[in-house]
Amino acid sequence: MSSQLLDIGEIGLIKHLTANESYTPDILVGVGDDAAVIKPSADKLLLMTTDMLVENVHFTISTITPYQLGWKSMAVNMSDIAAMGGVARWAVIGIGMPANTPLSFAESLYAGIQDICQKYNTQLVGGDTVSCDRVVINITLTGEVEPENVVKRTGAQVGDLIVVTNTIGDSAAGLAAINKRADTEREGDSRQSAVGSQQEREGTRLAATKHGLDTHAAQIVIKKHLEPIPRLAESRQIVQLLSPTAMIDISDGLSIDLCRLAEASLVGARIYEDKIPISDEVSGVAGELGRNRLEFALSGGEDYELLFTISPQKVMAIDSTGVPLSVIGEITPFETGRVMVTTERVEKTLIPRGYEHFSVV
Amino acid sequence: MSSQLLDIGEIGLIKHLTANESYTPDILVGVGDDAAVIKPSADKLLLMTTDMLVENVHFTISTITPYQLGWKSMAVNMSDIAAMGGVARWAVIGIGMPANTPLSFAESLYAGIQDICQKYNTQLVGGDTVSCDRVVINITLTGEVEPENVVKRTGAQVGDLIVVTNTIGDSAAGLAAINKRADTEREGDSRQSAVGSQQEREGTRLAATKHGLDTHAAQIVIKKHLEPIPRLAESRQIVQLLSPTAMIDISDGLSIDLCRLAEASLVGARIYEDKIPISDEVSGVAGELGRNRLEFALSGGEDYELLFTISPQKVMAIDSTGVPLSVIGEITPFETGRVMVTTERVEKTLIPRGYEHFSVV
Repeated sequence: MSSQLLDIGEIGLIKHLTANESYTPDILVGVGDDAAVIKPSADKLLLMTTDMLVENVHFTISTITPYQLGWKSMAVNMSDIAAMGGVARWAVIGIGMPANTPLSFAESLYAGIQDICQKYNTQLVGGDTVSCDRVVINITLTGEVEPENVVKRTGAQVGDLIVVTNTIGDSAAGLAAINKRADTEREGDSRQSAVGSQQEREGTRLAATKHGLDTHAAQIVIKKHLEPIPRLAESRQIVQLLSPTAMIDISDGLSIDLCRLAEASLVGARIYEDKIPISDEVSGVAGELGRNRLEFALSGGEDYELLFTISPQKVMAIDSTGVPLSVIGEITPFETGRVMVTTERVEKTLIPRGYEHFSVV
Repeated sequence: MSSQLLDIGEIGLIKHLTANESYTPDILVGVGDDAAVIKPSADKLLLMTTDMLVENVHFTISTITPYQLGWKSMAVNMSDIAAMGGVARWAVIGIGMPANTPLSFAESLYAGIQDICQKYNTQLVGGDTVSCDRVVINITLTGEVEPENVVKRTGAQVGDLIVVTNTIGDSAAGLAAINKRADTEREGDSRQSAVGSQQEREGTRLAATKHGLDTHAAQIVIKKHLEPIPRLAESRQIVQLLSPTAMIDISDGLSIDLCRLAEASLVGARIYEDKIPISDEVSGVAGELGRNRLEFALSGGEDYELLFTISPQKVMAIDSTGVPLSVIGEITPFETGRVMVTTERVEKTLIPRGYEHFSVV
């Protein structure tokens, strides 16, 4: 029988997972003492963010591999650090898992965390692993940023341009493609009875290849949903070359996150439907599923792209960032509200719809 | 009908709870942006620790009030900062709760957090509140410490004295008294069917007065179990006056935590049964319950007292700390192992028994 968490206990698990961890000189004490001991950089500000992901609320074991789950848990926190203009540095993780979870599940989860940490020079310096009837992952990530580079949500000025990175709606289209698969299977077989079972926990890296909507476009957006890329590198380019006045990451949906930025800055916003960057893959999946591609972009969420505002004087510097950026609108006075101009040139009030943690479950 | 979390959503909850939060000048951005922005102290090292508490694993809603739960969740993290010799500074919290949890539960939980934070000059700078079928609380706490004052687990030297703060075993005796109540009630009525129910979530501050073993001694140790005091002030006195060579907090039990310190320092340890400080209350409760008071002290856990080692040259400075300290033994060579000398002067191997997260559930 393969090893389970209860065979080795908490102490054994943390030691096991971090046995080969090597630390950079800024970490004086890593995993294994009462707290990590870190030497922060001189003259930098410290950033701190936390996110909790709960099985069957934020993810299901049957549709994400443990490797992807580890990756994504860290990516969502890195995205928050990127949204402040910072560099990701040190993380701690709290994990709750059933005691009969196979050790291989924890190892794959950790591998996903380790890979994304390595990619972005971030180090896991501590953790707490506890027994829980469902998987709960809470990562707290710190970052650093020069005082002059901090970007809050509050600085958008009337006349500023509204800009987003890459394309929007991919993650939501990916989720829809995954859910289509679940629907297909509910019709076709009894697989749903195994959701969250040990067999599925052992499924590790295979799950993402088994989706029902299996077009090339679907595969691309599903990967974007399950393995999002935090825009840390892009953020540094944007901060250094465009001096953004306000920034937020699109975690809950373009409409709701734009409204948050506008609310924090006490301004209005006008965006243009035909300027919103939507990928061919999103259009393709929307077509296949009979869904509205604009809905994916406006209220889908989990894109982890950056949404920010810049002075119009910076518009000529956009290309120099080397980041795919789209100007989608402009900041208006507060009284104007938040609106979207449709392709038919009709102005509509922007409804802040997206993922709200207590209202959708 | 009273408000529930789902009425206000995540955004509403965080705003609601932290609406009156005022920040010290070291916090440039608190709750409400993508990440908190903090100005760390110059020339200090950063400490970072995290703990996850899960309903029905680490606590039951029927025996701890939400206020106490908030207090305790923060206290266990503060204890880790104390064990490194540091000062507690900035915290973030991840909370999972059922969507139908009354708002008053979240408010009481937050009040407990706020009170202990105020007492120890710590600030809550961010959080994530999500839906979960049971209550899960994950606090990450940072601290600061002067480089010369960091105390790891690894520095104990042969000949050093082993010292503990206050008394040991109170928390375990308190838990036993609480469990006695549960047993009594299982015999007497059908209360257990309501465990974790909404009615109990609304029970707030009343629960602790309802325990079956209701002697004065029981009340004292139950309070120590539910509202532990992190030894932050004591730690600073110890660090500055006794230059401890190694330190750990007693979270899982004296025997297991002493073994951890000895293992990290690659040394042995000899403690003396009759030197272990056990309160009259623990003796009283042990007598009432027909339990062994020494067992409470050795393998009970959750005392959050400090266990540390000092050079014998420092023994005369112990009183100057103003902290109730007991020298319970001495550090020996690794080969000697970890032993306890009983009251009958018999040397016994110290079994590292205590709370192991995956092995007891």
